[in-house]
Amino acid sequence: MDDDDRTAGSHDDAASAHDHTAHPGYADHRAAYLARLRRIEGQVRGVARMVDEDVYCIDVLTQISAVTRALQAVSIGLVEDHLGGCVVDAARRSPDEGQAKVKEAADAIARLVRS
Amino acid sequence: MDDDDRTAGSHDDAASAHDHTAHPGYADHRAAYLARLRRIEGQVRGVARMVDEDVYCIDVLTQISAVTRALQAVSIGLVEDHLGGCVVDAARRSPDEGQAKVKEAADAIARLVRS
Amino acid sequence: MDDDDRTAGSHDDAASAHDHTAHPGYADHRAAYLARLRRIEGQVRGVARMVDEDVYCIDVLTQISAVTRALQAVSIGLVEDHLGGCVVDAARRSPDEGQAKVKEAADAIARLVRS
Amino acid sequence: MDDDDRTAGSHDDAASAHDHTAHPGYADHRAAYLARLRRIEGQVRGVARMVDEDVYCIDVLTQISAVTRALQAVSIGLVEDHLGGCVVDAARRSPDEGQAKVKEAADAIARLVRS
Repeated sequence: MDDDDRTAGSHDDAASAHDHTAHPGYADHRAAYLARLRRIEGQVRGVARMVDEDVYCIDVLTQISAVTRALQAVSIGLVEDHLGGCVVDAARRSPDEGQAKVKEAADAIARLVRS
Repeated sequence: MDDDDRTAGSHDDAASAHDHTAHPGYADHRAAYLARLRRIEGQVRGVARMVDEDVYCIDVLTQISAVTRALQAVSIGLVEDHLGGCVVDAARRSPDEGQAKVKEAADAIARLVRS
Repeated sequence: MDDDDRTAGSHDDAASAHDHTAHPGYADHRAAYLARLRRIEGQVRGVARMVDEDVYCIDVLTQISAVTRALQAVSIGLVEDHLGGCVVDAARRSPDEGQAKVKEAADAIARLVRS
Repeated sequence: MDDDDRTAGSHDDAASAHDHTAHPGYADHRAAYLARLRRIEGQVRGVARMVDEDVYCIDVLTQISAVTRALQAVSIGLVEDHLGGCVVDAARRSPDEGQAKVKEAADAIARLVRS
């Protein structure tokens, strides 16, 4: 990820106020995430086709496990981008902003671990 | 689940050889699974839209956790249908067939737990 | 697992009434499970020692992930023994008993997948 | 968490070279983690006792799920302390140190999600 771009982004006046919508941490990888999500959408459609065609339960389950893992890989990527972008930026602005972002990220990670 | 239907399906000559394709354990709930999978497909498309619109990382992560949970709920339903259909049927045919199906189901459950 | 032993066990008069306590599905592997659990107990103690000695967070996390995986492997083994023992036995007694055991097992598997 | 304490710790000369052992992010909560880990160790011993006493499979599984959740809660706490301590500190020293810590943390989170 290009650190200068991100810093440039966060100097934008709007960014400190609206930074939730301005420049998400994944912005530099948006196209790659979109491609992965489209592939996952196709995998889900494939699972539906398997069910429609009476494919054996175990084979359907194996395919759903693959979709779940693909989704988790996207989540882990987003967490990394978020920590490296939003959290590091916030920490560099002030320790308090850093801690607030860390708390929020930890809650999201907890949901991810439990899902 | 209607036990007679399932038995009827499996008395087909081909069924003992090819019972993977004949009557999966989820057959009686096929329409419900298809509806759930279509909803999940729409949720994945919704996540892609969020990424495309630069929605805040944490909100994208929350939505992916919801999709993952929905997929796991489908998997758990399929496991239950498979145990109650294919595994119970096999156990009633013979202990050995039952054990073979149990081994296969346990492997699928292990993949599910680890995904 | 020795199928005859299990069948013999379930013909015991007490077994159909009290079968929760009489002969759990894991009975034939009890010693192996006890050895694994003792090892896991030692691993947890090792994690506590790491924390006590100020070991780096990431190394503590890696070790906890190993303990969690070891516990899940025990769970998956117990599920397999339960399906191959209690569930298959119940299915062979009657379809209804089989379905009741399947429902109970599916609930336990759901807790496992979500934990 | 007291940020000054942490900074005080990390101004030690050795700290930048060896900061893995100097002051882990969880240092301020060490006693609480040790208490939780001792409780988890007792829970694992309780599971072994259940197995030794032939407790019904499903009840053993329920108890193991509780232990797994307790371990995951410790992991999530450690991740939060690590992000708020080591990662924020590193980000405040330099963007590059921040990114290196983020990469390492993301890998640990990935292991956690998959375990």
